Amino acid sequence: MAEYDTEVSDDPLFILRHSAAHLLAAAVTELYPGTRYAGGPPVENGFYYDFDLPRPVGEDDLPAIEARMAEIVRRGDPFEQVLLPHAEARRRFQELDQPYKLYWLEQKASDDELVSCYRTGSFFDLCRGPHVASAAEIRAFKLMRVAGAYWLGDERNRQLTRIYGTAWFTREELDDYLHALAEAEKRDHKRLGRELKIFALDERTGLGNVIWLPNGATIRRELERWIVDEELARGYQHVVTPAVARLDLYRQSGHWERYRESMYPPMRTERGEELELRPMNCPHHILVYQQEIRSYRDLPLRIAEIGTNYRWEKSGELMGMIRVRSFALNDAHIFCTPEQLHEEIVGVIELARYFMETLGVTEYRYRLSVRDPERMGKYVGSDEEWANAEAALVGALEALGVEYELGRGEAAFYGPKIDFQVRDAQRREFTNSTVQVDFQMPERFGLEYVAGDGSRRRPVMVHRGAFGAMERMIAYLIELYAGAFPTWLSPVQVVVVPITDANLPYAHTVTERLRGHRVRVELDDRPERMGRKVAEARDRRVPYVLVVGAREAEAGTVSVRDRAGEQTTERLEDFCARLLAEIARRR
Amino acid sequence: MAEYDTEVSDDPLFILRHSAAHLLAAAVTELYPGTRYAGGPPVENGFYYDFDLPRPVGEDDLPAIEARMAEIVRRGDPFEQVLLPHAEARRRFQELDQPYKLYWLEQKASDDELVSCYRTGSFFDLCRGPHVASAAEIRAFKLMRVAGAYWLGDERNRQLTRIYGTAWFTREELDDYLHALAEAEKRDHKRLGRELKIFALDERTGLGNVIWLPNGATIRRELERWIVDEELARGYQHVVTPAVARLDLYRQSGHWERYRESMYPPMRTERGEELELRPMNCPHHILVYQQEIRSYRDLPLRIAEIGTNYRWEKSGELMGMIRVRSFALNDAHIFCTPEQLHEEIVGVIELARYFMETLGVTEYRYRLSVRDPERMGKYVGSDEEWANAEAALVGALEALGVEYELGRGEAAFYGPKIDFQVRDAQRREFTNSTVQVDFQMPERFGLEYVAGDGSRRRPVMVHRGAFGAMERMIAYLIELYAGAFPTWLSPVQVVVVPITDANLPYAHTVTERLRGHRVRVELDDRPERMGRKVAEARDRRVPYVLVVGAREAEAGTVSVRDRAGEQTTERLEDFCARLLAEIARRR
Repeated sequence: MAEYDTEVSDDPLFILRHSAAHLLAAAVTELYPGTRYAGGPPVENGFYYDFDLPRPVGEDDLPAIEARMAEIVRRGDPFEQVLLPHAEARRRFQELDQPYKLYWLEQKASDDELVSCYRTGSFFDLCRGPHVASAAEIRAFKLMRVAGAYWLGDERNRQLTRIYGTAWFTREELDDYLHALAEAEKRDHKRLGRELKIFALDERTGLGNVIWLPNGATIRRELERWIVDEELARGYQHVVTPAVARLDLYRQSGHWERYRESMYPPMRTERGEELELRPMNCPHHILVYQQEIRSYRDLPLRIAEIGTNYRWEKSGELMGMIRVRSFALNDAHIFCTPEQLHEEIVGVIELARYFMETLGVTEYRYRLSVRDPERMGKYVGSDEEWANAEAALVGALEALGVEYELGRGEAAFYGPKIDFQVRDAQRREFTNSTVQVDFQMPERFGLEYVAGDGSRRRPVMVHRGAFGAMERMIAYLIELYAGAFPTWLSPVQVVVVPITDANLPYAHTVTERLRGHRVRVELDDRPERMGRKVAEARDRRVPYVLVVGAREAEAGTVSVRDRAGEQTTERLEDFCARLLAEIARRR
Repeated sequence: MAEYDTEVSDDPLFILRHSAAHLLAAAVTELYPGTRYAGGPPVENGFYYDFDLPRPVGEDDLPAIEARMAEIVRRGDPFEQVLLPHAEARRRFQELDQPYKLYWLEQKASDDELVSCYRTGSFFDLCRGPHVASAAEIRAFKLMRVAGAYWLGDERNRQLTRIYGTAWFTREELDDYLHALAEAEKRDHKRLGRELKIFALDERTGLGNVIWLPNGATIRRELERWIVDEELARGYQHVVTPAVARLDLYRQSGHWERYRESMYPPMRTERGEELELRPMNCPHHILVYQQEIRSYRDLPLRIAEIGTNYRWEKSGELMGMIRVRSFALNDAHIFCTPEQLHEEIVGVIELARYFMETLGVTEYRYRLSVRDPERMGKYVGSDEEWANAEAALVGALEALGVEYELGRGEAAFYGPKIDFQVRDAQRREFTNSTVQVDFQMPERFGLEYVAGDGSRRRPVMVHRGAFGAMERMIAYLIELYAGAFPTWLSPVQVVVVPITDANLPYAHTVTERLRGHRVRVELDDRPERMGRKVAEARDRRVPYVLVVGAREAEAGTVSVRDRAGEQTTERLEDFCARLLAEIARRR
């Protein structure tokens, strides 16, 4: 039945939730006589039902509805299937004054088949089922929220009231689910990002463009410096290329042809020149490659950049820092010989793994995408090139002893790849790193190097992400850490709280000592109670609060409170050494 | 006479150069009979003359022309003024077949005044003078180059051949000038930028957008980290804001109204939204200010960013990294109370001075721009606000004991300012830092803070540059250092050269030891002669070359060659300690 129609399933949880939707409708029609019901399917983790109600119903009304549902469960009303001829079904719904059901009934073409209906107590619905035998089986449910929904999803139609709920086999499963939801909500990067002043979104900069507030800029700066230093140590060469180019560059690269929908509108000058914000860095790194005649001695050439990319995502799909219209990508392109592919791919996987392990990211998996052996004609590059590249990818995964899934036929037409899939707090999966072989771009741009024998050859190009986009990864890390970033990334690492004003001089000494070591430290000298200052620092997820009074001043110590609630007294030097070691370790 | 017309001057050098232009024309007409001469004025440092020649003349011909000029000088041809009635002058130039001169003659309206002409040997020109008495006075001259120039500067007209020269009173002055030119040419950032692989310009990214190659990106990264760390230590809060915004933001800020000519064309979406690349960071930092309700306790709030700005400079004015269409500005905006202005301005000047002194920039001066007391009506902000701000600026300059020039009436309409003017290798002056009080933006955006008494007040906004744009400053530094960057900024700090392959293991040890200290070191293990490797490293301006052989390996020493040609042998640890201290000192 259009939007309410779901595949008929015999999954018991699906059936339970479908029946819970009927239970909800039964309760609502009992409580609010005159209610017209439109439809209600099971959805992921629960169900909903849409109503046209005789009075406004909001979230305040949910407890009363839940209570009536519980009553029906106690009564143990059976779910009875009733098979009726079409005309008879029509008569019944006319009698019940249910125009939405009559609409659905009219959608059913055939007049010679019987129409399936279900009865639960006084509630009578047009429905294929299947359902539980009795309401008594629906014991673990909860109504979640109320939303508006247009009839048939069309905003020119009447707005209905949609009530969402969740249902599980046992009370325990329900509690687990509600607990996980609450945890995810507490970790939500949009909420924490605002509370912890990490980032802001302001429509005046256009939708989907992140403003990094000082705290967020600090986290990003620490990460970027770490990434860049690590890449330099591993033989990458960092560049900075313009975020804008002539549209012709993306015509040549093929982006304008195939990717235009995701690109910003071009800028057209009075003289007819067309400029474009770059959707990807690859053509720009090709320009770097082309600034010199390259020799085999220059290869592998690893061109890296934390480059801003602009993508015209649909406004409805934008979300916090996860789906944005501009983002800074930890990107690199490796130009190498086919023989060097294996080692380069090993290097990329090792680097991505080092980044993720340092950050404590553990829920990830590798996915290898190769050609579809049935459709060999659709790929760019020779059979031999593909075989070599796929062997290099498989070989790298196996050399590192990592498990991976194989996606046969999932390679792009221009080359095979490995994706590094991460799962976030809300169990959503995203690709944060990728290593992708490309046989096409070097052709399109006529890239060459001079081989040892003086001949001109075409290099292979590898697109490589290791950390991902700063926006998306930091959104992920906010949720992973629930805002409590490891010390090296914490915007404020230490807050010093003097017990009374008399302790201010020593508090200053402590603060300056730490600051001298480039610790991000704040002295809280506001005229507030000490307890409140400590609590506020904890709310801000500051790793260490140092409380200093007369005793500490005399002994040269600090009273340390960490985020876990641990409290110790240490000599200032000892704390300082411990803190610096922790920061240097990045764990 | 239109483009050839210059103010009549009695400056002796001006007269000398004007006469040198005639001398050039005399030589050319003698050498190439049938030459038609259009005109030739003195210009800065020299002169030129435009000819319509019977045969092509290029730079290869300049020695012959110079030789003929020298001959005329030896002959001592006098410069004679000839005053003729208009009709007689016309007859003469008709006879000489000089249509360009006839054109100029016709521009002279009056028929009753005598027309001034000059004769030098056989050369006869329409000219007001004055001139030297004899060609013998023109002893120190040189022809510089040949260029094309359209008649009357209009590209629809015939193209003439323009020959440029320079002339001085003495041989010594000429030599000094040529030497300074050669030095400036050697230091030219476009040439060195290419040779040292610092940056590239590629039209495919649009004109005026710099590609920072690995060496340039290294210099920029070192500078940026230093700047950001120093600003953080001085209480700035760094942010990262989008380089794009809705055009409305710049309508509100007033940029679109007054600055549109220098802005990129807007991007228009299908739904009619207009987006724009930011020409300046100020509106974006105002958005940061507005993300919270600000209290007097938050002030001064110093919002800083190395932010990319986009300016649509005219294509004819683009030059290397000096005039570009996108650049990364070391920018900040300070939001403060009027009482805090003085201290904030002192802080900005101290910071700019610290940056410049560390970099060895010595040729600069301060310029204070204040209101025009005659035109008090044209300024935004009250008399009291202006008096306070100007007093704060003067007070800051005087507190720091720096000399400054006063530009009365040079303030912008929205506030007074101090500029920090730097002079480059080619004696061009540019503003690299500025501190500018702004009474207007806070009004336009309705900025507020909550004062101690709970009332809402308007903060003052200070626009502040301390380092300038990365592109322009690094162009300047390339020329200041003639490419030999101080060690901390050098893309490669050390090259290790083994005397023979037998010394490779020790060379590796040395390299790894330095790399462990994050020194940017390269091991040159190519199959080349040692002398060539040392010379190449010097050409690349690498601060230190370490030559290691059997003796060094045995003694644990390195043979150090610096860029000044000094050569010492040191224990590896000693060299390492000295190098790290030099890098840390940044001098």
